[in-house]
Amino acid sequence: MTTNPSPHLLVLGCGFGGLWATRALAKAGARVTVVDRTNHHLFQPLLYQVATAGLPGPSVAAPIRSIVRDYQNVTVLMDEATRIDAAAKLVYFANGDAIAYDGLIVAVGATHSYFGNDHWAAHAPGLKTMDDAQEIRRRILTAFENAERTNDASERAAWLTFIVVGAGATGVEMAGALAEIARHTLAKEFRNINSRDAKVILLEGGPNVLAAFPDDLREKAYAQLTRLGVAVRSGAVVIDIDETGCALKDERIAARTIIWAAGVKASPLGASLGAPLDRAGRVIVLQDLSVPNCANVFVIGDLASVESDGKPVPGVSPAAKQMGTLAAHNALAALRDAPTKPFHYADYGSLATIGRNAAIVWLGRFKLWGVPAWLFWLFVHIFFLIGFRNRFVVLLDWMWAYLSFQRSARIVMGADQSVKKS
Amino acid sequence: MTTNPSPHLLVLGCGFGGLWATRALAKAGARVTVVDRTNHHLFQPLLYQVATAGLPGPSVAAPIRSIVRDYQNVTVLMDEATRIDAAAKLVYFANGDAIAYDGLIVAVGATHSYFGNDHWAAHAPGLKTMDDAQEIRRRILTAFENAERTNDASERAAWLTFIVVGAGATGVEMAGALAEIARHTLAKEFRNINSRDAKVILLEGGPNVLAAFPDDLREKAYAQLTRLGVAVRSGAVVIDIDETGCALKDERIAARTIIWAAGVKASPLGASLGAPLDRAGRVIVLQDLSVPNCANVFVIGDLASVESDGKPVPGVSPAAKQMGTLAAHNALAALRDAPTKPFHYADYGSLATIGRNAAIVWLGRFKLWGVPAWLFWLFVHIFFLIGFRNRFVVLLDWMWAYLSFQRSARIVMGADQSVKKS
Repeated sequence: MTTNPSPHLLVLGCGFGGLWATRALAKAGARVTVVDRTNHHLFQPLLYQVATAGLPGPSVAAPIRSIVRDYQNVTVLMDEATRIDAAAKLVYFANGDAIAYDGLIVAVGATHSYFGNDHWAAHAPGLKTMDDAQEIRRRILTAFENAERTNDASERAAWLTFIVVGAGATGVEMAGALAEIARHTLAKEFRNINSRDAKVILLEGGPNVLAAFPDDLREKAYAQLTRLGVAVRSGAVVIDIDETGCALKDERIAARTIIWAAGVKASPLGASLGAPLDRAGRVIVLQDLSVPNCANVFVIGDLASVESDGKPVPGVSPAAKQMGTLAAHNALAALRDAPTKPFHYADYGSLATIGRNAAIVWLGRFKLWGVPAWLFWLFVHIFFLIGFRNRFVVLLDWMWAYLSFQRSARIVMGADQSVKKS
Repeated sequence: MTTNPSPHLLVLGCGFGGLWATRALAKAGARVTVVDRTNHHLFQPLLYQVATAGLPGPSVAAPIRSIVRDYQNVTVLMDEATRIDAAAKLVYFANGDAIAYDGLIVAVGATHSYFGNDHWAAHAPGLKTMDDAQEIRRRILTAFENAERTNDASERAAWLTFIVVGAGATGVEMAGALAEIARHTLAKEFRNINSRDAKVILLEGGPNVLAAFPDDLREKAYAQLTRLGVAVRSGAVVIDIDETGCALKDERIAARTIIWAAGVKASPLGASLGAPLDRAGRVIVLQDLSVPNCANVFVIGDLASVESDGKPVPGVSPAAKQMGTLAAHNALAALRDAPTKPFHYADYGSLATIGRNAAIVWLGRFKLWGVPAWLFWLFVHIFFLIGFRNRFVVLLDWMWAYLSFQRSARIVMGADQSVKKS
């Protein structure tokens, strides 16, 4: 790199937190480098649609370079940070390079947590990345194909049983979409099986689905899930998972397709800062999102542990965006020795979609469910989806899907791994 | 399977030949099973658009089950045939099963041929399947990322050199699209490199590009390719390919991205029939598309070697469709001991697209090039693309791409393999 007098701001990760930080720094005219292990910003709230064949992958992703093309002060690199040396102000990358920074914003997020049972991962993939979504889509579509193919009744039943572990927003969305695939999309397409015989089981270790919502909305969500054909089992703690199914405390469920939506843990990169971590491995930041004893380092999004108004800030996209904008401001302030601002989370409410005409919306005293909630969810997600073109094509896909009960992306890729070899 | 008095027709492969055969059998009310190793029919003429990030994969594919849903007499299975026992009228599959038939139509097509140099495959993927397209897309997009990332000038040049081997229709399409990506799509998006510095080299062992077209149209194609920025080198025979580039007789070209469009060979399944094969491994069929000494077996599409009006029938989709329809008719006739019909190829002309506003069309005395040819190509391909929805979304994607110079599917998947580890 050529020498440049203006300070160098480095952003690691380009999810919602990293992208909002990058944009704020870009607009401020700072010299910025943003590094992500993929080439795209992912619109994570719609990733479950890719996993359930409702949308093609590229509809919910935008190349990071495209998004920041007009900012000549922003450099985009595709690489993976492996270690931060905060004393030397250096970040090391997978390809062996090190990049020096004056200010650093770490936004590399979280990954699935199997609570110490990492061998479950092979049998119960989680949904965080585009590759995860493609893999889950492949498993779901292939399961029906294998059920059609087999002559063994118990094997067929196992291929037609779909378990979703964890009844947070992602788990509920996945279960609802799976039920719709079995009941509507694939109906009439098989000759040896009836896709409607498929069982979709949503396992929740705690007492409630969508635990973050108030009682009345949770009950609405439960009723809507049941109406869609999802078997909801609360208080169901998973003891073991293998290729053939899932063990609960006093029962075994035979299932060939298991999706993990039960827990996340912070990226291990946070630990290399040497700062205190919480139980989920998140970096406990100061109120201005800076890291204690690490000059000019800020941690945001799912990797940050911070409170606002005495409550922990949840790992949701509005929080990440707000942190991104503030961290950009504070990083620039710190470089000028100006005072930084504390983070306050502005909670505009929560919403969760369940399936066709089914969702819940909680905006303080304003609550919605059923069709109005679903339309509200649709509008909000289309509105926030990055890039005009994506928004329009997604809308079209959904209109088509709604009217036809079809799903546009029912394509098994990675076919070489899909045909069952004897 | 339950016993059924009506004869069982088995179709292997669901490309153009297999799908047209299946449809004809379905309409005739026959008991049909169609088996493909993927779950989708691929609209192969637009697959290069997926490989070059112009369209998402699902836009050029349709689930086979969806296509034939309304025919209760058609069963679809996802599996791969490994061996045909024509004497026993049995087909063996990868999952270990065997399926009995009364009439068999084999339409499993062709794969890449590296002319005995199979170790080239890892460094120069060809474009036949959806997985191929995704892999080529990943390589193209990642090459620019790696060029931006490196500080070594010769390494950068190698990442910015794209070689397409073979100047038939696929090679020309790929080279034209690559040139457009470098010159338009990615322009202004990189900081350390200029994507317009990328070299796209089209190597052709023979004397001409698009050898199947008449002289004047070939010259137009050559001029259009050159105008788009493609370096066309005819008489360039590839001697070796490895990770770092490609060796010609008296020269080495350093390139990290090489795409193989030079040759195909027939699927090895044809050999298990025990019938005579031609040099490309295709089954030499009788004029009614049946296989000598194999009762009620028909071979069609790229796997069949047959002449029409004294000329070999080319491996193109119109020929495969025509063979599919005729083979279905003849298979049913053979089962009734009725006379079969001979195959006559109706050649409606040829067309090849080169890039933005560039194509050639040859319909006998009627010839087009440039913008009119490109519009004609666009219209024909939209028209033939399976399924209303795909057609509409593809048109929208293309309108957007044309007006914005953007490409909608610029998403690197398989990121775990994409970040260069040191």
